[in-house]
Amino acid sequence: MNNPTLKEIALQLGISITTVSKALKGYSDVSEKTKKAVVDLAHQLNYSPNSFAVNLRTKESKTIGLIIPTVIHNFFSNVIEGVLEEAEKRDYMVILLQSNEKLELEKKQIDLLLNKRVDGILISLSNETGEFEHLKAILSHNTPLVLFDKIAKLVNCSKVTINDKKAAYDAVSYLIKKGYKKIAHFRGSYLPQNSIDRFLGYKKALEDHNISYDSSLVFVCDNNMDFEDGYENAKKVVDTHPEIDAIFAVTDLVAIGVIKYLNEVGIAIPKQIAVFGFSNWFMSSVISPKLSTIDQPGFEIGRKSASILFDEITLKKNNSPVVFQSIELETSIIVREST
Amino acid sequence: MNNPTLKEIALQLGISITTVSKALKGYSDVSEKTKKAVVDLAHQLNYSPNSFAVNLRTKESKTIGLIIPTVIHNFFSNVIEGVLEEAEKRDYMVILLQSNEKLELEKKQIDLLLNKRVDGILISLSNETGEFEHLKAILSHNTPLVLFDKIAKLVNCSKVTINDKKAAYDAVSYLIKKGYKKIAHFRGSYLPQNSIDRFLGYKKALEDHNISYDSSLVFVCDNNMDFEDGYENAKKVVDTHPEIDAIFAVTDLVAIGVIKYLNEVGIAIPKQIAVFGFSNWFMSSVISPKLSTIDQPGFEIGRKSASILFDEITLKKNNSPVVFQSIELETSIIVREST
Repeated sequence: MNNPTLKEIALQLGISITTVSKALKGYSDVSEKTKKAVVDLAHQLNYSPNSFAVNLRTKESKTIGLIIPTVIHNFFSNVIEGVLEEAEKRDYMVILLQSNEKLELEKKQIDLLLNKRVDGILISLSNETGEFEHLKAILSHNTPLVLFDKIAKLVNCSKVTINDKKAAYDAVSYLIKKGYKKIAHFRGSYLPQNSIDRFLGYKKALEDHNISYDSSLVFVCDNNMDFEDGYENAKKVVDTHPEIDAIFAVTDLVAIGVIKYLNEVGIAIPKQIAVFGFSNWFMSSVISPKLSTIDQPGFEIGRKSASILFDEITLKKNNSPVVFQSIELETSIIVREST
Repeated sequence: MNNPTLKEIALQLGISITTVSKALKGYSDVSEKTKKAVVDLAHQLNYSPNSFAVNLRTKESKTIGLIIPTVIHNFFSNVIEGVLEEAEKRDYMVILLQSNEKLELEKKQIDLLLNKRVDGILISLSNETGEFEHLKAILSHNTPLVLFDKIAKLVNCSKVTINDKKAAYDAVSYLIKKGYKKIAHFRGSYLPQNSIDRFLGYKKALEDHNISYDSSLVFVCDNNMDFEDGYENAKKVVDTHPEIDAIFAVTDLVAIGVIKYLNEVGIAIPKQIAVFGFSNWFMSSVISPKLSTIDQPGFEIGRKSASILFDEITLKKNNSPVVFQSIELETSIIVREST
């Protein structure tokens, strides 16, 4: 490249043009000190042929990646909004990808983001994600990573969650205190940590209140924890266990499927069967009967995850050490008409 | 840049290293033919120091921008999902931005996207957008642009919409045929074309069925066409015009606010007042009573807008002429319990 600025930088710093060029491209065989000097001087000299070249120089893309299992879920829409708000403040842009709950797609999307050289990545894992090499690849690539909601405990990075076990424990304890004794649980699929934790919270609440755990009252929602899952499982549980008096569902969407089925067959809520959800989606406050649920602060989860990621990006840029954080945001019980 | 590959390319093509370098950076004083020859040969020689350099060479970012007024709305979540699906097929990435219905933010976000050199931009305009210079800037920048849902008729680009006027006309005509005569309309704010068109469809349906238009039965939803808008306007219309027998709301979210208020004050739906929505959001099928509405195909709108944009990006790359398209997707009436 016949570039007078490169020559000027080389001359002023007393290094070769090749070193300048390598420094601007972030090659690892140039020391961080030299890189910084070159980039600073390049800035002073207004060396900016175009934005891609800026990327080459500063190694910053001012872009982060956000991988979400299902965009359409109200909870994740709230997360996205929180992330966008934090990014907006910093003039950062967000590349949004949807894994569709598929591990293969999640892997591919991480590759794309790393090739794109995003400054950091936020992920809520797919339901299929039971191996973590692709996540560790992000870290060995020295790209900041924050996991949220559906996390992997074994991956060494910052995490933002709620205490799913405690929240579920609180919900089921509340039901027991209200006098419900035969409580079914419509759980999420087997891999996601939050499904496991909500199930464990349900189980522990029963044990702590001397109600014996009955595995035949637990039904798995493996159709994306969807409305249909709630509807179908409600049918099953009413057929096989007419004696149940409450259902604790893994998400509001599942609970709304339950309510729809019970309404259709004329089972009174909460008189005959109480229904408890999880997430506090908007619609849970407008259906009939209004759904009791756990308030899961999606917007706050998005904001907090993004803000930790941006902090880590800044620390990395300044060559400062990063201490990973595990944040648990508070949840609360919202009691409405369904219990 | 002391790069042997650049020398090799220059030698093989019989041009200067400076020209090779300029061609790879896409400078306009190098002919398209030369650029193509240089890029092709660079590919053959596997000249790819990093992805930013690839951008420099091909001038493609493999990224598009998507500006949405409100991510949290179920309709836009569907649109996003449609866009992501089309992008995924082509290994493209989507930068998502939320204008929050603010013109200033929309302008800034377009600047960011243009600086980022995205290959194309998709926008649904904010409710404040009544001037269009920032949109024309995209076109004069020679970046493909597709507007969808909330469009500007005066901007010369491809557009994907539904026929809002016809859909509203169909909804109100249906109400009239069912015997409703005093039909109020809770309209959207004044700027968005789709609010205007839905209002015009309402008015025309009345006229064509010899019902005189009464402006005091039209209420504006200026709080983002939100749930609260429906709730508050329902209160107003019931207080000031107890004689009305139906309400046609600009969105399902507004209609759900209406249903909540009418349920609270014990007005029977549809016996005393029928309610008609617009969009067919998921929750409209699970609230009580279930809402009659217009099915607005968000997912298809997203897919179609993205697919037109990608076609235009390809045409541009091949220096082929682009013919702008205006696509109107079909809507249908969904009759449920509320009418």
